[in-house]
Amino acid sequence: MALLGLGRAGKFHIQSIQSIPGINLRCVVDVDESLAKRLAKDLECDYSTSAEGPLGQADVDAVIVASPTHAHYGQIQAALEAGKPVFTEKPLGSSLKEIDTCFGLAKRSGLPLFVGFNRRFDPSFSSLARGVKEGQVGVLQMLRVTSRDSPLPTMDYIRTSHGIFHDCIVHDFDMLRFITGKDPVEIYSVGSSFVEGIGALGDLDNVLVALRYDDGLIASIDVNRFASYGYDQRIEAFGSKGMLQAENRSPVSTVLSSDEGVLRPTIEQSFPTRYREAYREELTAFSDCLREDAPVPVTHEDVRMSFILSELGEQSHREARPLRVSEHPAFDDLQEKVPEA
Amino acid sequence: MALLGLGRAGKFHIQSIQSIPGINLRCVVDVDESLAKRLAKDLECDYSTSAEGPLGQADVDAVIVASPTHAHYGQIQAALEAGKPVFTEKPLGSSLKEIDTCFGLAKRSGLPLFVGFNRRFDPSFSSLARGVKEGQVGVLQMLRVTSRDSPLPTMDYIRTSHGIFHDCIVHDFDMLRFITGKDPVEIYSVGSSFVEGIGALGDLDNVLVALRYDDGLIASIDVNRFASYGYDQRIEAFGSKGMLQAENRSPVSTVLSSDEGVLRPTIEQSFPTRYREAYREELTAFSDCLREDAPVPVTHEDVRMSFILSELGEQSHREARPLRVSEHPAFDDLQEKVPEA
Amino acid sequence: MALLGLGRAGKFHIQSIQSIPGINLRCVVDVDESLAKRLAKDLECDYSTSAEGPLGQADVDAVIVASPTHAHYGQIQAALEAGKPVFTEKPLGSSLKEIDTCFGLAKRSGLPLFVGFNRRFDPSFSSLARGVKEGQVGVLQMLRVTSRDSPLPTMDYIRTSHGIFHDCIVHDFDMLRFITGKDPVEIYSVGSSFVEGIGALGDLDNVLVALRYDDGLIASIDVNRFASYGYDQRIEAFGSKGMLQAENRSPVSTVLSSDEGVLRPTIEQSFPTRYREAYREELTAFSDCLREDAPVPVTHEDVRMSFILSELGEQSHREARPLRVSEHPAFDDLQEKVPEA
Amino acid sequence: MALLGLGRAGKFHIQSIQSIPGINLRCVVDVDESLAKRLAKDLECDYSTSAEGPLGQADVDAVIVASPTHAHYGQIQAALEAGKPVFTEKPLGSSLKEIDTCFGLAKRSGLPLFVGFNRRFDPSFSSLARGVKEGQVGVLQMLRVTSRDSPLPTMDYIRTSHGIFHDCIVHDFDMLRFITGKDPVEIYSVGSSFVEGIGALGDLDNVLVALRYDDGLIASIDVNRFASYGYDQRIEAFGSKGMLQAENRSPVSTVLSSDEGVLRPTIEQSFPTRYREAYREELTAFSDCLREDAPVPVTHEDVRMSFILSELGEQSHREARPLRVSEHPAFDDLQEKVPEA
Repeated sequence: MALLGLGRAGKFHIQSIQSIPGINLRCVVDVDESLAKRLAKDLECDYSTSAEGPLGQADVDAVIVASPTHAHYGQIQAALEAGKPVFTEKPLGSSLKEIDTCFGLAKRSGLPLFVGFNRRFDPSFSSLARGVKEGQVGVLQMLRVTSRDSPLPTMDYIRTSHGIFHDCIVHDFDMLRFITGKDPVEIYSVGSSFVEGIGALGDLDNVLVALRYDDGLIASIDVNRFASYGYDQRIEAFGSKGMLQAENRSPVSTVLSSDEGVLRPTIEQSFPTRYREAYREELTAFSDCLREDAPVPVTHEDVRMSFILSELGEQSHREARPLRVSEHPAFDDLQEKVPEA
Repeated sequence: MALLGLGRAGKFHIQSIQSIPGINLRCVVDVDESLAKRLAKDLECDYSTSAEGPLGQADVDAVIVASPTHAHYGQIQAALEAGKPVFTEKPLGSSLKEIDTCFGLAKRSGLPLFVGFNRRFDPSFSSLARGVKEGQVGVLQMLRVTSRDSPLPTMDYIRTSHGIFHDCIVHDFDMLRFITGKDPVEIYSVGSSFVEGIGALGDLDNVLVALRYDDGLIASIDVNRFASYGYDQRIEAFGSKGMLQAENRSPVSTVLSSDEGVLRPTIEQSFPTRYREAYREELTAFSDCLREDAPVPVTHEDVRMSFILSELGEQSHREARPLRVSEHPAFDDLQEKVPEA
Repeated sequence: MALLGLGRAGKFHIQSIQSIPGINLRCVVDVDESLAKRLAKDLECDYSTSAEGPLGQADVDAVIVASPTHAHYGQIQAALEAGKPVFTEKPLGSSLKEIDTCFGLAKRSGLPLFVGFNRRFDPSFSSLARGVKEGQVGVLQMLRVTSRDSPLPTMDYIRTSHGIFHDCIVHDFDMLRFITGKDPVEIYSVGSSFVEGIGALGDLDNVLVALRYDDGLIASIDVNRFASYGYDQRIEAFGSKGMLQAENRSPVSTVLSSDEGVLRPTIEQSFPTRYREAYREELTAFSDCLREDAPVPVTHEDVRMSFILSELGEQSHREARPLRVSEHPAFDDLQEKVPEA
Repeated sequence: MALLGLGRAGKFHIQSIQSIPGINLRCVVDVDESLAKRLAKDLECDYSTSAEGPLGQADVDAVIVASPTHAHYGQIQAALEAGKPVFTEKPLGSSLKEIDTCFGLAKRSGLPLFVGFNRRFDPSFSSLARGVKEGQVGVLQMLRVTSRDSPLPTMDYIRTSHGIFHDCIVHDFDMLRFITGKDPVEIYSVGSSFVEGIGALGDLDNVLVALRYDDGLIASIDVNRFASYGYDQRIEAFGSKGMLQAENRSPVSTVLSSDEGVLRPTIEQSFPTRYREAYREELTAFSDCLREDAPVPVTHEDVRMSFILSELGEQSHREARPLRVSEHPAFDDLQEKVPEA
């Protein structure tokens, strides 16, 4: 495989790739030549400063897009056009149209386009989703997703993040779909900003989303840009027969009892450690798509829907009112596509 | 003291009273004479089939109103008029006007009127509230209250309960005020019904409430009429410096490890055991009001506000839109009263 | 009932009695007349400065012995001779002979003699014992009891305590018998002293006891006079099909997550709160013995055996070798009595 | 590196090696040629059916001995004589003399000889050891190690395992030394057998070891060959200022609340998953010894002492008496060597 982008995301993909027998890196790409050169040497592979390099190499079977967000769309298109299957971090692009274009291209060319919604591959979250599907909680009535980031991203990052809905909550919308297999009919968001700088950008750092499904299921998502105690990622599924929760994880299992109380270690501090297994699993799944022609587990509809809900969530906050999902301009379009999903 | 009403609430008040040195029952009252007679014998006290009995007794220092909801208002008035301090389960009455009438009477007569919002006296919840006040979580940003009832009440109970907002969520609104010491500016509710019969009554059994405060704090309340695994009562306070949670409690602390997993006992199954200490504490606090002239910890404003939010929550669900608290007809009135609180 | 002794033990028995409907205090006894007088006034009962007072009262149905250890034997004898059933804190006396004398007297007079091994009545420990009996862990192979005291008793208390085996570990020996229903064949102890003063008295504050049963079961008891983090009382039963543990309890269920970790409150700090329910349950059980002629749940054999093991444990440490239980001088005697148990 | 032995241990070493950048496999060795051939193909390395193969290869920098126990001693000697640093699973050999011979050879040749006491590298256990060293629990008074195997090994394995002391408890003795940095003065063991077949072999499957240190510290080790609920590996360190525990770990963090209780998933089921990080860490540490001349963290004295305690533990059980460590024939020898450690 070739890896485009050697920043934060690129680096933990390298780690994952190294631990998956059967995936080998042929080429790493970054505009920073010295970085690319150095990593290529460590990894005993080629390097390039432009995506075109590996796209022309016959022994590159697939491309991993881990470059900055704004470059995704162009690189995905180029890779698919060069006949290479693509694994990409979200987002695919900055509009529904770009998403549709990429998937259209993938469909026409018969190549896998794999969007890395990593949480689907987290062992605890996928175990919870399986439990819900198997009926462990009976009829699902209330589904709650909590996502609090850590550490606080830089203002540079925030500035180009497309806002908390498209940068963060899109993952939570996808989790709802992953767990329930269905879409809400109404969405309401309320948000605020506590971090100096974020409010100034017109962005939010503290958001609650309420979603209603037509069968009575209610979902809530609560998100914060910064939890001082670590990367807080939990899900709770309540139903007629019980409740399933996925709790936070800690790197060590020690407990200190003293006259101050019973102290357990801090939870995982950030996504590379919290989702280490998930990143490994999603690349393994991508590898299975390549070798065994397995269907891509994250569909075009999945990607569209989380994008649409992000847009609606943002709009609901802006207009301070609940929105029906059917109000979204792409809704009719969506209805038609559902059978295809 | 005299106890009016020997139903479910009356019975656990008897238990509390027996365990508090310094409170003695002089008289029990119930329309069911044989029940009143039997309990009076066990408790070595008088009995009556009407509230007027003890109200005329000079050695009755105070009255506990634990009768059916519809009788509260009349009995509270009669007791205050007879010069007896009153402890009452919520609700005081069925309208703001009745609430104001009772508190007005209490104020004029200089008698304590104590509304039993029991959760304020729960050791875990009051410890959480104290921690928030002491700044353990820094600036409060997200406050979540989860209340799921168990066992499922009878349809007879539901029918006369005034609906899930006034019967259940009123407690959660009061918890928000107890913890934050302030009121929201906007409220949005979404609800549904899964239990056959409840929907038919036009009532809800599954509700999510989102509340916005003018300083950016967001609160959520999620409520269900029936949790199969027990009486689920939790609070989570998230802030700039950390998170405080109050978790469920179990009557025993055993853990069974087997090839099926690690099994802890079910949590407390219902309010009499879950809030046993809270019921004892609130009666002790009432007793302190009588003996030491301590101020009543639940104020007129507290009771008004939880009632107003219950009305607004209900209306928000009905109209499927967020409501500003200032839209409530009593709002101006409320603003004036705040200084007095 | 009459209560002999108004010290630490006496005071929490008062609390228990007040919360049990159907047990009333008729008389409290203490050599400290002003204390007895004051409490009698609060409790609306009689008082006396000598045990003989209530023993002559016809309306005293039973006697609770909560006086200092050295007075137990004489008061128990006197009470039984006066025809009063007796509830007593351990120890009955300072020798097997005194134990046998008391139980002999009780047997001849047909009066209940109830030794308060409170832990048998703790909801978590009795639930664990029930689980073991019901086969939840299969064949029991390893049983571990941890008992760490808190706060550190005074040196005055330690000096008259008869040593850690008779004062503390006797409870743990009794727990083993309560859970397993059988006796070990071999015992080995190793102990040391860390607390200044305790070693000087020739006593121990840190002890590990290993016990072997003839069916292969092994038990361990580890005890310490002082755990800085609270009153640490745990049991673990391991068997062929699983493991049952009874864990410590905390008075509140809050959890604080911060950058220092995940902090739960300290566990219960001492026996009056940790075993509050147990003290209440054992008095209720005593009351059932009186009213319903229920058999006394702690038998003569139980009391003998925990005493014998305490003697052997002490001797094993002194002689630094394992001892066979059959080496104890009372063993033959014991064998004869077993059928009677 | 070359890997000798492709059985159970060999296979997870392969997994570890693949995830450590900077360690590459040059050759795999197994008497089963087809197995060696197949794995070599997957791993893109050489293979051999005899240890001599890689020992003669100049590009093999070090050797990992993961062959059956009886072959360790010969292969370690051969590798050291061929000038190759050695990483080996315990045991080094079947006697103190063999251990001394190997370390003597390593010392003379200046080559690292690294004995894989994996638990020292487990993040939770090493965190606990660090906490004890930093004084988090004050003066250490009681140290408890629990090790219960899962799944039950085959009888073939047990037969050649050298008994539970040398096969299992040796790890626990090493943990005590790792945590305390000192050695006990007295040891007592009591054991039994519940698994059919193990008793017939004269081996034990249920053991409790009590150890006394000359400063008053007491340690206990309790071991079982089979825990039905998973691989149970815990440590508890109790001291004057608190208690540190290392608890079991689960692969997922879900919790199911139902009317049967609150169910968490089973703990890790066996050593390859429970100690995955530890195996990776120890190979990384070995790699650091090679590259950076870091001292080997497990010393000759460490290996001797755990072997000596295993012999004494076995003897104590056989003779049913506590043994002083100074009774061991190698003790004087040991005393001399201590300064060198």
